[in-house]
Amino acid sequence: MAPAGAKKGILERLDAGEIVVGDGGFVFALEKRGYVKAGPWTPEAAAEHPEAVRQLHREFLRAGSNVMQTFTFYASDDKLENRGHTQRFTGQQINEAACDLAKEVANEGDALVAGGVSQTPSYLSCKSENDVKAIFKKQIDVFVKKDVDFLIAEYFEHVEEAEWAVQVLKTTGKPVAATLCIGPEGDLNGVSPGDCAVRLVKAGAQIVGINCHFDPETCVKTVKLMKEGVEKAGLKAHYMSQPLAYHTPDCNCQGFIDLPEFPFSLEPRILTRWDMQKYAREAYNAGIRYIGGCCGFEPYHVRALAEELAPERGFLPAGSEKHGNWGSGLEMHTKPWVRARARRDYWEKLKPASGRPFCPSMAMPDGPFLLRLLSHADTSN
Amino acid sequence: MAPAGAKKGILERLDAGEIVVGDGGFVFALEKRGYVKAGPWTPEAAAEHPEAVRQLHREFLRAGSNVMQTFTFYASDDKLENRGHTQRFTGQQINEAACDLAKEVANEGDALVAGGVSQTPSYLSCKSENDVKAIFKKQIDVFVKKDVDFLIAEYFEHVEEAEWAVQVLKTTGKPVAATLCIGPEGDLNGVSPGDCAVRLVKAGAQIVGINCHFDPETCVKTVKLMKEGVEKAGLKAHYMSQPLAYHTPDCNCQGFIDLPEFPFSLEPRILTRWDMQKYAREAYNAGIRYIGGCCGFEPYHVRALAEELAPERGFLPAGSEKHGNWGSGLEMHTKPWVRARARRDYWEKLKPASGRPFCPSMAMPDGPFLLRLLSHADTSN
Amino acid sequence: MAPAGAKKGILERLDAGEIVVGDGGFVFALEKRGYVKAGPWTPEAAAEHPEAVRQLHREFLRAGSNVMQTFTFYASDDKLENRGHTQRFTGQQINEAACDLAKEVANEGDALVAGGVSQTPSYLSCKSENDVKAIFKKQIDVFVKKDVDFLIAEYFEHVEEAEWAVQVLKTTGKPVAATLCIGPEGDLNGVSPGDCAVRLVKAGAQIVGINCHFDPETCVKTVKLMKEGVEKAGLKAHYMSQPLAYHTPDCNCQGFIDLPEFPFSLEPRILTRWDMQKYAREAYNAGIRYIGGCCGFEPYHVRALAEELAPERGFLPAGSEKHGNWGSGLEMHTKPWVRARARRDYWEKLKPASGRPFCPSMAMPDGPFLLRLLSHADTSN
Amino acid sequence: MAPAGAKKGILERLDAGEIVVGDGGFVFALEKRGYVKAGPWTPEAAAEHPEAVRQLHREFLRAGSNVMQTFTFYASDDKLENRGHTQRFTGQQINEAACDLAKEVANEGDALVAGGVSQTPSYLSCKSENDVKAIFKKQIDVFVKKDVDFLIAEYFEHVEEAEWAVQVLKTTGKPVAATLCIGPEGDLNGVSPGDCAVRLVKAGAQIVGINCHFDPETCVKTVKLMKEGVEKAGLKAHYMSQPLAYHTPDCNCQGFIDLPEFPFSLEPRILTRWDMQKYAREAYNAGIRYIGGCCGFEPYHVRALAEELAPERGFLPAGSEKHGNWGSGLEMHTKPWVRARARRDYWEKLKPASGRPFCPSMAMPDGPFLLRLLSHADTSN
Repeated sequence: MAPAGAKKGILERLDAGEIVVGDGGFVFALEKRGYVKAGPWTPEAAAEHPEAVRQLHREFLRAGSNVMQTFTFYASDDKLENRGHTQRFTGQQINEAACDLAKEVANEGDALVAGGVSQTPSYLSCKSENDVKAIFKKQIDVFVKKDVDFLIAEYFEHVEEAEWAVQVLKTTGKPVAATLCIGPEGDLNGVSPGDCAVRLVKAGAQIVGINCHFDPETCVKTVKLMKEGVEKAGLKAHYMSQPLAYHTPDCNCQGFIDLPEFPFSLEPRILTRWDMQKYAREAYNAGIRYIGGCCGFEPYHVRALAEELAPERGFLPAGSEKHGNWGSGLEMHTKPWVRARARRDYWEKLKPASGRPFCPSMAMPDGPFLLRLLSHADTSN
Repeated sequence: MAPAGAKKGILERLDAGEIVVGDGGFVFALEKRGYVKAGPWTPEAAAEHPEAVRQLHREFLRAGSNVMQTFTFYASDDKLENRGHTQRFTGQQINEAACDLAKEVANEGDALVAGGVSQTPSYLSCKSENDVKAIFKKQIDVFVKKDVDFLIAEYFEHVEEAEWAVQVLKTTGKPVAATLCIGPEGDLNGVSPGDCAVRLVKAGAQIVGINCHFDPETCVKTVKLMKEGVEKAGLKAHYMSQPLAYHTPDCNCQGFIDLPEFPFSLEPRILTRWDMQKYAREAYNAGIRYIGGCCGFEPYHVRALAEELAPERGFLPAGSEKHGNWGSGLEMHTKPWVRARARRDYWEKLKPASGRPFCPSMAMPDGPFLLRLLSHADTSN
Repeated sequence: MAPAGAKKGILERLDAGEIVVGDGGFVFALEKRGYVKAGPWTPEAAAEHPEAVRQLHREFLRAGSNVMQTFTFYASDDKLENRGHTQRFTGQQINEAACDLAKEVANEGDALVAGGVSQTPSYLSCKSENDVKAIFKKQIDVFVKKDVDFLIAEYFEHVEEAEWAVQVLKTTGKPVAATLCIGPEGDLNGVSPGDCAVRLVKAGAQIVGINCHFDPETCVKTVKLMKEGVEKAGLKAHYMSQPLAYHTPDCNCQGFIDLPEFPFSLEPRILTRWDMQKYAREAYNAGIRYIGGCCGFEPYHVRALAEELAPERGFLPAGSEKHGNWGSGLEMHTKPWVRARARRDYWEKLKPASGRPFCPSMAMPDGPFLLRLLSHADTSN
Repeated sequence: MAPAGAKKGILERLDAGEIVVGDGGFVFALEKRGYVKAGPWTPEAAAEHPEAVRQLHREFLRAGSNVMQTFTFYASDDKLENRGHTQRFTGQQINEAACDLAKEVANEGDALVAGGVSQTPSYLSCKSENDVKAIFKKQIDVFVKKDVDFLIAEYFEHVEEAEWAVQVLKTTGKPVAATLCIGPEGDLNGVSPGDCAVRLVKAGAQIVGINCHFDPETCVKTVKLMKEGVEKAGLKAHYMSQPLAYHTPDCNCQGFIDLPEFPFSLEPRILTRWDMQKYAREAYNAGIRYIGGCCGFEPYHVRALAEELAPERGFLPAGSEKHGNWGSGLEMHTKPWVRARARRDYWEKLKPASGRPFCPSMAMPDGPFLLRLLSHADTSN
C-alpha cells in the first residue's frame, strides 16, 4: 500500500512518458453482477452494496488500473430522482460513499482517484451556461471535499458543454481530463474531432480524448484526429481513450446506443483479451498514453492492456499471476490439439465464430430517418 | 438469513415440486475477474482471495441461486501439484476454505451447500476401481466434516467413473446428484444418455442430468433422452441441467473444449439474458426442476432463469430489484427508438449481430482425425 | 459427332465401371436466361424458343455431360393448363420439340438422351394407382416414339408413387433410373432411404438415387443410406445423385422449397466450382457413378464434376479448353497477389465471404408448425 | 425488327430524357457457359463459337438491354498473343465477328451497337501518349468500318489514359461515353471522381460514369460525386453506371480484383434480382439515365433493371413475359407458406442466408502492404 502523498500525480506520470492504464466502466459491469439497473443506470450501489463496488475496484486495481474512477456516474440529485425510483440515499451520500470506496482501494496500490462529471439533461433542454455550470459546480464540491487526485469531464456529445465543464473543473486547481463520446465525424453539432480537441485544450484540459459509444478501433481513430488538430494548432496535450469493449463497426454517429442490441443483447460483440491487446498497441502507437476502457470492460480486459504494454513499462500487473502470456497456460493440457493453442500466433489470427448461424454480423442502427439514411449510404445489403 | 436447520433439503424441495435454481460456474467467472488461471483452472483463490470468492457467491445468491456449490473444482492435492505451480495452501486448506465461504453465504439466504467431485486423471490412466474410489473418498471427507447439505458428482465423460463416484458419495448418507458432460450421442464410450441415466439411478443418484461442455439447447435435449431412458426402465429420478453460457451448435461429441475458440475467444458465443429465459422455459417444459449453469454463467444469467420461472414459483430473486422485466427499464429513455425496445417481443425476436464481419458463425472443431470427419459429415461448406 | 447406334447404353457404361456425368437442371438455368417462368416452371420454351434450349444443351454437352435430359419437366397437358397461362403449344408439341432438341445435341457428341417423368398432382390428391399410372403412361408414349435411350423417374417425395412410375417405365423395355427428392430422414411418409431404395430396385429400377431439394453433401449422404439398404437386402443397383447447386445445411425434410430464400434469393447459397469438385469426389468415394446436378447448376458446375474425375476417366471435357486446372489461368496475372491464387491449396481452403454483413448464414425454414419445431430442435439461436 | 436508320441515337434518347438500359458483362457470363477462359479473359469466342455469343446478346436484348456492346474486350492483337495461347483467329477477325453478332441481334430489336476500348498494358508500362493513342486508333478502325452506333471508353483506372482514349474516339464523329473503374476515393493517382468527370467531359465525352470493379451501391455513390463535380464546373453531361453484380462492401480502392474470392469464389456475393431493382431505383434517383451492368450480370439481372423502371418508361421488356412482378408467379403454389412469398414486401425485406456457416461475411482484400493498411483502418475484427 502506498503511503498517502507518495504517489506521483497524473500529469507527473504522463509528463514523464509513463503509460497510465485506466479502469473499466462500472455501470455495465455492476449491471451484470446485479447492482445497477439498466435504464436508470444510477450508482446508488456505492451506498447500498459497498462490498460489490469495492470488489470491482479491487479487481481493476489487480488487473493493472492506475486510476480508480469514483462510481458517481449520474449521481446528481436531479438525475437520481427523475429516474423514477425512490432512493434510500441522497446524492450527497452516494457521492461520498463512492469517493471513499475509490480512495480505499486506490490506497491498496499505486492508483490515483479521479472524480468525474458528464453531460447533463440541462444542456440538452437548452438551459443557460450559468445553469449548466452550476450543476457541475455542485458535483465537484464533493470531489474537492474528498480530495480526489484529478478530475475527468467525460461522456459529452457536444463540445460546448464539455468546454463549460472543463472551465468549472479548472477552478479546483486539480488536473483536468476531458473526453467526448463522439466518432470520427465529430460532435453532434458537426464540430470535427480536431476542432473539439483544440477547444478543450484552450478551455484548460491537460488531457483530451474519447470515451464510450464506440469500439477501440473507432476511438483510437478519433483520438488521432484530435491529436492532429491540437498539433496543427500549435498546442500541447496528453491523450486518452476509454472505448467500449464491444465491436461496433456498424454504428452511426450516435454510437452503440442506436444499435438494435443496446443494451441487452450486446454479448456477441464483446471483445476478447486478444482484441484488447491489439487495441492497447494501436493506442500506444497513436501516441495515446492514458489507455483505459468504458462499458463492457471486465477486469481481464484491463489486464490485457497492461500485459500488452508490459514491455514498455517493465512490469506486469498483479493479476497476471493468474494468466499465462498469450495462452501459455494451455501448455499442459491433456489434448495435443488444445496444447497447440498455447501460442500468440494462434490467438492473434483466430477469427472467432459466434455460434449463432441465424444472426447477422452487422446491424442497421435505429434512429431518426436522416441518420438511418446516412448509415445506409455507407453499407451494403 | 435463515436459521441453521430451518432449510428444506434438496430432495424435500424437489419432491414437493419446487424449482431449484443452481448457480453458475466459478472457474470461468473468476478467471475473468483475475483469480483463476486458465489452463490449471485450480481453485486456490478460496484460500488466497476469499473476498473475491465470497462476493461471487453473494452475487449468485442475490441472482436467485438456491444452491452454493463449494469452489473445490480440481482441489485434490495431486491435481493442485501436477498443475505446475507451487501452492501456498494445501488442498485441505483450500477445500475447507471453500466450504466455509459457501456456507457463510448460503446462510445469508435460503440456499443449500453442495460439495462436488468430478472426473479424475486416475480413471483416464486406467487405474483400478479401488484407486479411483479412494480419491473420491478423500475428497468427500472434508464435505462430511463441514457438513454440506448434499453432494454432486459432476463433469464425467464416462458413465462408469460417475457410477463409482455415486457409490462412494452414497456412503455419506447425504442426497446425491450426478451430472455427465456429454451430448445426445452419449458418453465417450458410446453409452446412450438414456442408458447412462439408468446406470446412475441404479447406483444411487436421486438427481441425474448434464453439466458443462454444451449449450443449453443441447443439454436440455440430452437430459430429455436421460429422462426417457429412466422412465422406460420404470425408475424414478429428479433431473437437472447446468449447461454452458455459450452457443455451441458446432461442437462434436467432446464439447466446447474442441472448439477453436476454447477458452480465450468464446466471447461471441455468450448467451444473452433472453437466451437464458428461453433455456429456463425449455428446461422446465422438459421436466427438469434443478436448473442452473456452468462455465460462462454470470450472475445476470442466473437471475434470468429465476425471472423466467417467477410465475411458477411466485417470487422474484432479490437481484430483480435492479432489473426491469423484459427490458422495461428502458421505458424512460430519452430516445423514442430506444424506448421502443422496452418490450418482450423486441428482445425475443432480435437476432443480435456480432459486429465481426470477418468472422464466421460456426467453427470446425479441432480434435483427432476421426472426430473431425464425423463432425464434417453433418455440416456444410 | 457419334453415328447413331454407335453409342454405348447407360447400363453398358455403368456395368463397365464408367463414370457417367449428368447435366444440370433446365428450369432454373432458363429462368435466369428469361425463358421459364418461376412459379409455373413449365417448359414451353422447348417449342417457343428452341434456340435457347438448344444452346443450354450444347453448353452442358461441352461441359462434359454424358446425358441430355429432355426438357419436359411438368410437360403434361393438365399441368400446362392448370398453371394458369394459355399455351400457344400443346403438351404433345412441347414434348416432341424437347426430345428433338435433346437428340440433336446429344448426337453432336457421345451423350445419351433420357426422358423423364416426375411426381403428379394426381398422387397428392389421392387418385388411384391406375389413374396415376395412366398419367405416366401418356407421358412416356412420346419418349418411346422419339426413341430416347433411357428413362428417369425423378423428383418424387413419396416412394410409393415412384414405384408406380418405375413399373410403368419398365413396360418400355428401356433402362430405368429412379431418384427421389428426399433427405436422410426418408420420404414424406417416413420410409427410410434404405427402404425406399430397396422398393425401387424391386420395382425394376436399375439405377437409384437422389435428385433436387438438397445440397450435394446431403444428397451424397442419403444415397449412401440407399446403398447400404440395397446391399443389406442382398440386391444390386447403380447409384446416381443430382443435387442442387445451393448450400442447404438449414433445410428441414421438405428441402429448399421451405427455405425463405426460395426461389428468388438463393444467390448467396450457390456452390463454387471448387465446392463442385468436392462433391464429385465425395460422390465417387461413396460408390456413386452417375453424377450430375439439378436446380442451380450452370455449365461450369458440370465441367467441375468432369474435371475432378478426369484422373479416373482419362479425359477432360471439351469445355476445359477454356479452364485452367485449379485456377492456373491466373498464373500470368499482373498482380503478384492474384498470381498467388493460381493453386489448388488456395481455392480448396478459401472460405468465401458473402459481402452481406447484414445477412445471417442460416435461415429458419418456413412450413407447418410441426416441421418448424423439429428443425428448431436441432439448431441454435 | 427495326429498319436500319430508324433507331434514335444514344444522345437523342438521353437528351429526350429516356432511360437507356445497358447490357451485362460478357466475359464472366461466357466463362460460366464455357467459352471464355478466366485469366486471359480474351473474346475469341466471337469467332470460335458465334452461336454462344449470339445467344447471350439475344438474352440481354430480351431482358431489356437497349445497347449491345460488341464482345471485343481485350481484342487487340498484342493482348490476344501475349495471353499465351495460340489463336486460331486474328484480332481483326474476332473484332469483325463481334461487331457482326452485336449488329445482327441489335437489329432484332430497338438496340444500339456500341464499340468499346479499354485500358492498355502500354499505358501501365509508361509508353508515350502517341503510342497509347495509336493502339486506340487501331481498335476503332474496325468499329468505324462496321459502323457501330456509338463508342465507349471503359474500364480505366487512370483518368489520363481515359482522356487520351476519348480524344481518339472523338475523331470518329460518333457519340462517346467514358467510364472509369474507380471508387469514391478516385483514380489510382488519387484524382477525385469529380475532377475525373470534369476532365473526361472537357476531353469530349458526352456520357461519363463508372463501370466494373465495385458493387452498384459504390458505383452509384461514385457517379454522384462525378455529377457534382461536373455541375460545379458549370459543365453538362449524361451519366451512366455499369457496376458488378457482386456485393463488395469490403473492397479497397482497387476493387474486386483484390478480394480473395476473385474470380472463382464470388458466388456468395451475387446480387439477387431484388438487389438489382434497388440499384436501378437508386441510380435513377441519382440522375443516372444509362443504367447497365458489368461482370456477374446475367440476363435476369438486366430484366430486373428494366422492370424496376417500367413505371417511368411505360413498358416492360419482352422477357417479363416469363416473370411475375415481385414474385407474383408464386401465387398458385401448393404450399400456403410459399404463396405468402408472392409480394414485394417479402422480397424487399428478406436478408438472404448464405448457407455457409463456416464462412465470414466480409473479406480482407489482398494487395500491397499500404493498401491493406488503409482498408484495415476502416474495418473491424
